[in-house]
Amino acid sequence: MVHAVTLAHQAFIEAQAHASSGASRGSVTDLAALLDAICAEMSSQREAIVSIAHQESTLPIEPRLQGEFDRTINQLKHFAEAIREGSWVQATIDHALPDRKPVPRPDLRSMLVPIGPVGVFDAGNFPLAFGAAGNDVASALAAGNPVIVKSHPNHPRTNVLVGECIARALQSAGVSPHWYTVLPDTSPDTSEQLVMHPSIAAIGFTGSRHIGRKLIDLAATRATPIPVFAEMGSLNPLVILSGALEESWQAIASDLSKSILLGHGQFCTRPGVVLIPKDHPNARRFIDTLASTLAAGKPQSMLSDATCHSYQKAADALIARNDLTIHVRPTFPGARGSSALLAETTAGAFLREGDEILRDEIFGPACLVVTFDSLDEAIDVLQAVSGTLTVSLHAGSADMPNVARLLPVAQGLAGRVVFGGYPTGVEVTHAMVHGGPYPAGHPGGVTSIGSAAIARFSRPVCVQNCPSQLLPLALQDSNPLHILRKIDGRWRTIEDKPQRA
Amino acid sequence: MVHAVTLAHQAFIEAQAHASSGASRGSVTDLAALLDAICAEMSSQREAIVSIAHQESTLPIEPRLQGEFDRTINQLKHFAEAIREGSWVQATIDHALPDRKPVPRPDLRSMLVPIGPVGVFDAGNFPLAFGAAGNDVASALAAGNPVIVKSHPNHPRTNVLVGECIARALQSAGVSPHWYTVLPDTSPDTSEQLVMHPSIAAIGFTGSRHIGRKLIDLAATRATPIPVFAEMGSLNPLVILSGALEESWQAIASDLSKSILLGHGQFCTRPGVVLIPKDHPNARRFIDTLASTLAAGKPQSMLSDATCHSYQKAADALIARNDLTIHVRPTFPGARGSSALLAETTAGAFLREGDEILRDEIFGPACLVVTFDSLDEAIDVLQAVSGTLTVSLHAGSADMPNVARLLPVAQGLAGRVVFGGYPTGVEVTHAMVHGGPYPAGHPGGVTSIGSAAIARFSRPVCVQNCPSQLLPLALQDSNPLHILRKIDGRWRTIEDKPQRA
Repeated sequence: MVHAVTLAHQAFIEAQAHASSGASRGSVTDLAALLDAICAEMSSQREAIVSIAHQESTLPIEPRLQGEFDRTINQLKHFAEAIREGSWVQATIDHALPDRKPVPRPDLRSMLVPIGPVGVFDAGNFPLAFGAAGNDVASALAAGNPVIVKSHPNHPRTNVLVGECIARALQSAGVSPHWYTVLPDTSPDTSEQLVMHPSIAAIGFTGSRHIGRKLIDLAATRATPIPVFAEMGSLNPLVILSGALEESWQAIASDLSKSILLGHGQFCTRPGVVLIPKDHPNARRFIDTLASTLAAGKPQSMLSDATCHSYQKAADALIARNDLTIHVRPTFPGARGSSALLAETTAGAFLREGDEILRDEIFGPACLVVTFDSLDEAIDVLQAVSGTLTVSLHAGSADMPNVARLLPVAQGLAGRVVFGGYPTGVEVTHAMVHGGPYPAGHPGGVTSIGSAAIARFSRPVCVQNCPSQLLPLALQDSNPLHILRKIDGRWRTIEDKPQRA
Repeated sequence: MVHAVTLAHQAFIEAQAHASSGASRGSVTDLAALLDAICAEMSSQREAIVSIAHQESTLPIEPRLQGEFDRTINQLKHFAEAIREGSWVQATIDHALPDRKPVPRPDLRSMLVPIGPVGVFDAGNFPLAFGAAGNDVASALAAGNPVIVKSHPNHPRTNVLVGECIARALQSAGVSPHWYTVLPDTSPDTSEQLVMHPSIAAIGFTGSRHIGRKLIDLAATRATPIPVFAEMGSLNPLVILSGALEESWQAIASDLSKSILLGHGQFCTRPGVVLIPKDHPNARRFIDTLASTLAAGKPQSMLSDATCHSYQKAADALIARNDLTIHVRPTFPGARGSSALLAETTAGAFLREGDEILRDEIFGPACLVVTFDSLDEAIDVLQAVSGTLTVSLHAGSADMPNVARLLPVAQGLAGRVVFGGYPTGVEVTHAMVHGGPYPAGHPGGVTSIGSAAIARFSRPVCVQNCPSQLLPLALQDSNPLHILRKIDGRWRTIEDKPQRA
């Protein structure tokens, strides 16, 4: 392991030296071409990859794993497009002011540059889209960094196969074979060595709060602390206001149950807490319908024995309480089988101090309905929830003043606020934010999905009075990459692009 | 102290609620007006502020403190301009695709939003420019956050006076009086309480590596870890290649000595290590001239007894070694008086393993010349230096191939690479990077000077299918703020700006 990181670091140093001496210094074509080559190699192995991911995860091939494969390719293409578009490097030029008094101002130019080898802990619940060629890997590669993957034990063989595709892609793109490694070992010792290796510049992690915090704390003990970009647990509260319960309780109960059961509840964006007005005439109907829909869901195999065991343990803890009503009691047939859980409690019970169990994420097809007496109480419940990936707000036509009150609360808590929808189904777009305040995201100011994820694995460097022949392409006066730049405080796009013939 | 943070947090929550219910939601005019008002209030107290800063720091009024006052105002104006220009929020819009198969794509819009109360530890060596209205304070306010300042014990009364100006500015700008507080206590207990307060969302720190790391480690123990944006020690190596020594050794010796002595060496960008080719015919002349110029500098009062004591202790440690030549031995007259130190050693001694003393920053007018035998050895020396704010490269006409080799090494190490110049004199521009790998900066991906510093104190939030009447101004279709935005993957500037009459 240590050796793989050392080799990756050497390859990085050599690539930096080459980029600054070559004719096309800082060319981005190579990086985009590498991501394209990964897409091509993976697509040629599509059947084998999907098949082994199915064997390891037991997730259905259709539509889940075929869809996840497509999404993985789309993510890689999205990042390749962002590299070619080029604005992510934040190229900024302040020209010299030779006549300024009392002293001239030098020429200053800055851009984002790669940071070095990135360690990625892939997610146990997405063998492909957050796996060995998933979002963290793709964005770290897109920024120009080597990547070392520590496989989740749920799908090591899938990762090896994807890693072989990437190895061929490196070769065809003319990149060092040490630029990317899937570590053969999935033990906690390997995790620790990866985080502590002095040549590792950053970590990407998707998984549980427990493990994520361990890695964050470990990285903080390094002589040189490094960032751990972690996406951890999330409650994804969904608030249904009176008007929505009035106008569309049936549709919400139906769509919400689908969102809870999607991927058998093993999604980081699964709605875990649903807030409804206690005394609304439709409240009982809504709960009964949600309960019957969830109860009708067949038991499914979970991702691993460990996941199934944790879900059962969390469910047992809820069932044992006397301040909850259990509407749907889960069953646990077979080795990894489980079914849905629906519980109900009051805002008062949820807010009880020192009682964190109701506010912890349950990973699986579980949902807790929390009934509130007033909007103030609903706000209190939201504010008692830790940072979350999403908050969803369902409102009827008369609810708009209440939505206006909830919006700043939701925004303070979440990376994404969904209006009239459900949090599962994360789009890969420029505006997506998949992150949020701790523990949903860490550090809070980042997203792990969408083109903005690239900048996590970079840092700004400024060159002062740099000779023109040493400037990277992104900072050369003629703007050979045709990218958006901030020049003397003004954004330049069209005006400094050469006219196309 | 706890109370000040709690009140600031309440004011923040109220402001967020107000912004999302008001007609001009997310208006940036208020924040820019607040910074303008701070400039006006401080300018009206200019004489008193400069005078008390002089009493506390003993720094000369002319040109230093008058210049620093101007710079502080310019920084505030730079941030106000960045707020009005508006692109820092990274407004991004991906329109809905209602006809997409198999499911429609929702409308997604994201922008950066403030994070909440920020604690700022101001710098001991810049009573104004990094003080109670300095870069960290201005950028945290610019992002829309309340600020709590923990004063450096070097200039508490200056901070109180500046704080009174800001209090009046808050009043005239219609902002809560709790939006900004200078804590009355400068003790370490206060520091600890500030970092650990659950309502503090981030810390800005400028100071020593020792204290900075303490705060970073403390913040990492919180239930909810927060970022500590710290600018700490820096060696700022300066490399003089053969051609430069050949062509301009006299000018470099003269200008370098001025850079070392600027602010009596108490600048974070002071060149602390100078690399020269050992066997160059001008090497001895260069060192002798540098020595005589530094020796001719009169002793000056240092910023505090503690700073003077630390400088003397570090100087004594160097003088006691047998692998250094001391060319200029410092004197320590009077209470806080000191003069320059110039030492020389070889790359071999500098690189000796387990010997960190030569690689530690000495805060004061000290410089260590390191002689190298070959470019490879010079590169080894650079790579043995920790992260640094700057690396400066001096080259003659024949040195360009060597500069091309040094550039990637320098870039890997520093936030700013200076060609043919000196690192002191940090410009406040868009392209400036004042930061660098640890310990110069932490985390590595940020700058504390220039408009890019604002984004440190923000995080992205995405709204999905948000009703148009609830959208913040920055994300409304009509682009009422006339800001640069990324829409469906394309940057839009001129085309969606209304024509001016």
